[in-house]
Amino acid sequence: MSASGPAPATRRLAELSGTAAGAALSADSIVVLPTGAIEHHGPHLPLMTDHLIADSVSNAAVDAAAAAGLDIWILPTIAYTKSDEHHWAPGTMWIGWDTLMQTVVELGSSIAAAGATTLVFFNGHGGNLALLQVACRELRRRFGLQTFLMGATVPAGAHDGPEELGLGIHAGHAETSLVLHLRPDLVDLSLAERSVPEHLADFEHIGFKKRVTFGWLSNDFGTNGTLGDPTGASAAYGRELFDLSVAQAVEAFAEIARFDPAGAPR
Amino acid sequence: MSASGPAPATRRLAELSGTAAGAALSADSIVVLPTGAIEHHGPHLPLMTDHLIADSVSNAAVDAAAAAGLDIWILPTIAYTKSDEHHWAPGTMWIGWDTLMQTVVELGSSIAAAGATTLVFFNGHGGNLALLQVACRELRRRFGLQTFLMGATVPAGAHDGPEELGLGIHAGHAETSLVLHLRPDLVDLSLAERSVPEHLADFEHIGFKKRVTFGWLSNDFGTNGTLGDPTGASAAYGRELFDLSVAQAVEAFAEIARFDPAGAPR
Amino acid sequence: MSASGPAPATRRLAELSGTAAGAALSADSIVVLPTGAIEHHGPHLPLMTDHLIADSVSNAAVDAAAAAGLDIWILPTIAYTKSDEHHWAPGTMWIGWDTLMQTVVELGSSIAAAGATTLVFFNGHGGNLALLQVACRELRRRFGLQTFLMGATVPAGAHDGPEELGLGIHAGHAETSLVLHLRPDLVDLSLAERSVPEHLADFEHIGFKKRVTFGWLSNDFGTNGTLGDPTGASAAYGRELFDLSVAQAVEAFAEIARFDPAGAPR
Amino acid sequence: MSASGPAPATRRLAELSGTAAGAALSADSIVVLPTGAIEHHGPHLPLMTDHLIADSVSNAAVDAAAAAGLDIWILPTIAYTKSDEHHWAPGTMWIGWDTLMQTVVELGSSIAAAGATTLVFFNGHGGNLALLQVACRELRRRFGLQTFLMGATVPAGAHDGPEELGLGIHAGHAETSLVLHLRPDLVDLSLAERSVPEHLADFEHIGFKKRVTFGWLSNDFGTNGTLGDPTGASAAYGRELFDLSVAQAVEAFAEIARFDPAGAPR
Amino acid sequence: MSASGPAPATRRLAELSGTAAGAALSADSIVVLPTGAIEHHGPHLPLMTDHLIADSVSNAAVDAAAAAGLDIWILPTIAYTKSDEHHWAPGTMWIGWDTLMQTVVELGSSIAAAGATTLVFFNGHGGNLALLQVACRELRRRFGLQTFLMGATVPAGAHDGPEELGLGIHAGHAETSLVLHLRPDLVDLSLAERSVPEHLADFEHIGFKKRVTFGWLSNDFGTNGTLGDPTGASAAYGRELFDLSVAQAVEAFAEIARFDPAGAPR
Amino acid sequence: MSASGPAPATRRLAELSGTAAGAALSADSIVVLPTGAIEHHGPHLPLMTDHLIADSVSNAAVDAAAAAGLDIWILPTIAYTKSDEHHWAPGTMWIGWDTLMQTVVELGSSIAAAGATTLVFFNGHGGNLALLQVACRELRRRFGLQTFLMGATVPAGAHDGPEELGLGIHAGHAETSLVLHLRPDLVDLSLAERSVPEHLADFEHIGFKKRVTFGWLSNDFGTNGTLGDPTGASAAYGRELFDLSVAQAVEAFAEIARFDPAGAPR
Repeated sequence: MSASGPAPATRRLAELSGTAAGAALSADSIVVLPTGAIEHHGPHLPLMTDHLIADSVSNAAVDAAAAAGLDIWILPTIAYTKSDEHHWAPGTMWIGWDTLMQTVVELGSSIAAAGATTLVFFNGHGGNLALLQVACRELRRRFGLQTFLMGATVPAGAHDGPEELGLGIHAGHAETSLVLHLRPDLVDLSLAERSVPEHLADFEHIGFKKRVTFGWLSNDFGTNGTLGDPTGASAAYGRELFDLSVAQAVEAFAEIARFDPAGAPR
Repeated sequence: MSASGPAPATRRLAELSGTAAGAALSADSIVVLPTGAIEHHGPHLPLMTDHLIADSVSNAAVDAAAAAGLDIWILPTIAYTKSDEHHWAPGTMWIGWDTLMQTVVELGSSIAAAGATTLVFFNGHGGNLALLQVACRELRRRFGLQTFLMGATVPAGAHDGPEELGLGIHAGHAETSLVLHLRPDLVDLSLAERSVPEHLADFEHIGFKKRVTFGWLSNDFGTNGTLGDPTGASAAYGRELFDLSVAQAVEAFAEIARFDPAGAPR
Repeated sequence: MSASGPAPATRRLAELSGTAAGAALSADSIVVLPTGAIEHHGPHLPLMTDHLIADSVSNAAVDAAAAAGLDIWILPTIAYTKSDEHHWAPGTMWIGWDTLMQTVVELGSSIAAAGATTLVFFNGHGGNLALLQVACRELRRRFGLQTFLMGATVPAGAHDGPEELGLGIHAGHAETSLVLHLRPDLVDLSLAERSVPEHLADFEHIGFKKRVTFGWLSNDFGTNGTLGDPTGASAAYGRELFDLSVAQAVEAFAEIARFDPAGAPR
Repeated sequence: MSASGPAPATRRLAELSGTAAGAALSADSIVVLPTGAIEHHGPHLPLMTDHLIADSVSNAAVDAAAAAGLDIWILPTIAYTKSDEHHWAPGTMWIGWDTLMQTVVELGSSIAAAGATTLVFFNGHGGNLALLQVACRELRRRFGLQTFLMGATVPAGAHDGPEELGLGIHAGHAETSLVLHLRPDLVDLSLAERSVPEHLADFEHIGFKKRVTFGWLSNDFGTNGTLGDPTGASAAYGRELFDLSVAQAVEAFAEIARFDPAGAPR
Repeated sequence: MSASGPAPATRRLAELSGTAAGAALSADSIVVLPTGAIEHHGPHLPLMTDHLIADSVSNAAVDAAAAAGLDIWILPTIAYTKSDEHHWAPGTMWIGWDTLMQTVVELGSSIAAAGATTLVFFNGHGGNLALLQVACRELRRRFGLQTFLMGATVPAGAHDGPEELGLGIHAGHAETSLVLHLRPDLVDLSLAERSVPEHLADFEHIGFKKRVTFGWLSNDFGTNGTLGDPTGASAAYGRELFDLSVAQAVEAFAEIARFDPAGAPR
Repeated sequence: MSASGPAPATRRLAELSGTAAGAALSADSIVVLPTGAIEHHGPHLPLMTDHLIADSVSNAAVDAAAAAGLDIWILPTIAYTKSDEHHWAPGTMWIGWDTLMQTVVELGSSIAAAGATTLVFFNGHGGNLALLQVACRELRRRFGLQTFLMGATVPAGAHDGPEELGLGIHAGHAETSLVLHLRPDLVDLSLAERSVPEHLADFEHIGFKKRVTFGWLSNDFGTNGTLGDPTGASAAYGRELFDLSVAQAVEAFAEIARFDPAGAPR
């Protein structure tokens, strides 16, 4: 933003007029695009869990980063994404890999046309990660955007519930605690049940984050479609996780602001 | 929802768990899918104008219809849609006709898979109307859904500003008043200017709603990309328009609930 | 056509050589592309009804407009279009929304490459209207064409049969009369039957041309797949309707010839 | 057509009602789909040359075959096809390989849905041949149709003009004579010029019909975009060629009627 | 290759570094892209038959042509292609027409970007021929490549086994002999059986290489999915056929090196 | 393979006949599909580096696993894949994300049709990983295949050259050593140069394997398009790495053979 004068009060780009957005965005600006999901999260969490988390953390982090002086803006969260692993569950509202890819490619084109050169996908749904990695490269090649991809929260693995064996990746301790913090009215802990495919720990090579990954659907594991143990979740832990996620995102944004792959300072 | 017992407090489907959503939806349920847009609305209105209006009116109308006893549910608003007529304006974030079509087809498939048979597109952006009509038929044929399409507000034509000549279709009197009512902090009336292509009134056959339509971009008219006269807009009129739009939507939902193309009562 | 000398006798562009077509077309030329359909029109009308009407009216209108001095040309009628609402009926030969869209986009590209800048879709099948509206904008944006869309006949609503209640939109009084005028050998009035979903008139908001539209297939209404009352159709009324449609099209072409969205005279 | 009674007078399927078409078509019926083109044919022939020839020969042949007792029907000619080799020439109206493929796949689906099992592409434009071969197999696999592909005329090679060296494949002696026979008003022989890339005869392996084929555009040869020598064309020869083409097509249809790849008589 | 110095020892382009490839390729270079197939070839031949033949003949021919001084390079053989006619047979690994087309279009783009202007498809699977013809034109138009298509072997028709009646086009005398020559360990002649649809010879117009072609699947003929008579195949004949095919390919490459459609010497 | 009798000598599925392949594959079989790449690997390594490594390691591992009793089969390596990050470098032969995805989806369909239910992608090019993860899930959902994805070699990170700082991911110490082992004739170490973007180590959050990933092209880093330090590479280390990779792959295959996501022993 080369113009002088006070920065707009809001960093929600869509709250600006087009005229103001065009003036606000420059090659120094970071544009954040959160991606949620509307998908089955077991009987105890709402369909909008990923959307809620991505939206909440990203907006808080952008506000904090802007307050710290970054030229950073946030777009509305994409609600419907690639939840094909939960396609079997009523309530999952999903689009296919090609439709999501086309969507983010076209939005990337719009962002580049608006004058920005840096785009950050802020993703709340693990099932989107691989495709968004593909998109990051595609947008880099086609529109010259410097693209980044980050998860909405600190890695769940580091904050698993005590009985999750590192498998708490969907509707488990972390996500349930976060929703208890953000929207306790949407959680029914009385319906929460532990759903951990412990047998996966038997494999040395195969695993969600091991050397050999595998294509899975959430009803493959003989459980209720969740992965984790929400029974011990708490709003207090959710708040801790939320604050930590925001803080780490702010740090990441600061790095993004000075990132140059060729090594020169930006 | 055939089961007895109290209805859920919320009618926002994504606030339910997948388990609850599967139980809530039946062949009697109406699912409402609002469609917004993030696009240039001149120097005085925010990019999110259409999104804001579609989201606000639809949620208010669904709540009111539910209170009146309808089995009706609402999904999160699609933020990014087919704003190609404003592609030239920085800040417009748009996807193409095929991407939007694929998106709504796949969401329709998800809705049908969840057990509902009635889908209502509640549209806040005029540029989506034609494509959503195509989608209504496609979803009817492929998934058997009974589909409907309605505008988020009462027809602007009937409520044009006095100097709009029936051309106030984008960022004019009606939309500006609505945003003044809903989010006055996002309007800067000091930047509003009349932008009416009066010469279009010279044509008997050609016009936005006449016998011969034409393909236009919002920068075709020698104006600032808006169509209408926002200078006399007011929050009071915006509230009136909002209430009227909600009321008419509730009436429409009631008709949808009893609609059967074959003539038998539902 | 800037060159002096007599205009070609024919206005059927495909009857010219490529060399002559290249010389004939300029930024002042209007190119008309009729769109028909091959689809079920009940037991009394031929599958080619829409094709016949679009082709006949458009050619007559172009000839008349050319005789009146317009620089106007017509292309062969597209025979197969988006008749998905009649997909259930044997004899309906249809292509999907994406195939029709791609077809007209590529033809628009060809027309622009030939030197014309104005394209008019002259449509004989109501089921194409929404998609062709989308196409009009797409062609405007991508190739700079000034695009128009008009129905082949004057609005049926204004000329409904007495018992059609405004619902005579497919194989009813108007279309049957037109075919009786154009190709009486193809009509078997003895098989004509009234097929009017009167119950639709009960709805204030929902309807083909009301505030809330709906996605329908022609076998949704508990009828024989037609909509209207052909029993009183006549060649005399068909001729009247034909002449009126031609006359209005000629008027519309004259407006198109002087149309400029920015307000300057062309 | 299992029902007794007289056959319909017309064999143009689109002239029948849908009801009649459904009754007329059976597993014994042959459906003929002609494919034309609207493309540059030099300064002396109309853009519609291929369309005219495909349409005329196919309809004459179907009428003759029907008179001889075959259960055979013809659809409207597809006007716009894959004329990409003439894309450089104003007046060429073309669609891409994928659009043409999708078109014929969807029409094949429609034909199968109508009850026929045999489809014959009757092609007037050489540039479509390869793609239609691909389509023949696709339609066989996906819809079980027995598909055939034949050229509209007897092979030009056998009837080349004396100075064509076997290269008279586009707007040369044969095509020019045919149009002189069919629509002499559309030919301007005074503009015809010999356009034969004689140097191609120097190649033993490379050639239009030799062991090594090559991808060519019609402006690759240093000529006017035609291939052949129309200067000696005549209506008399055109009539001879037309009659021969019709006669051979009738013979081919008779073979098609009794063709069974598994060897059993049909 | 304009640079002086010795030519690289290998003509397998993928064995060069990118740096060397960029230096090696120029507008004078010929790039050969072989296309195989992995598909059912009866009980006696391996799935990789077409791949083996295309790969072996093309590499031998390129080596010979390079030794004779041609600026010619070869790429790795595409293994998986359009084997839809054998889709019914376990072990056939195939991609659809659109996927193969996109693949070769994108590889053509890569080849053009590397500095070459001449591309030769060297095809081992007859089922690819028509689509590759389409591709040759598409690549000519879009990237300016001079494209060629040749079969990997001399036409089987000229070298049919004595009992094949010109129908030995799949796993018959020629292919079986070639594999006996190239990889005798992969042939089990004891399982070979004659599979000739002799009844096809009854048709004057319809046939694989006659005026009327047809869409066929390899299980249409009431045989074991092969077409030909492998029972008399021999390694000796295979060697003869191989040598002849290589020799003819070398001759064809020499013609390609001097080919100019406009007639000027290259 | 339920039938008794000796197993085929080869585990290269394409060396079997279709008949034998159909008999060999069962729900117990593992099918391995290697994916290579033809892409720039600096001035010292061949374009086929990834192809060579994927092909060599996978075949050796499958042979070893088969010798150990596994019911495992391997398909030909896909040569051309998604090398878009090297699109700028002559010699890179790449296809887009959608084309690769369609290719593997269609091959997955073929594999499922052949009777196998387990598919392992054995990938030699890092740029394919994300997309193949997407494919693993797509194939699981659409065809019920149990899908796996593994890298061809042990993670480079664990075996980086001493000066690579964990950034030796493309044409560095590990890959160069492997090619020195497998095909020393294709390596020119005299051209090898260290190309390590050391500045990337400055970032705590952003990195190839850190919390925030980024979209990069190989010419983004101000280097020669490689990432790593090949100067100390050796055939001896290459052999060690090869053997270790084979051994780990065999272990992984054994786990795959007994993997069941639902926890029951296979």
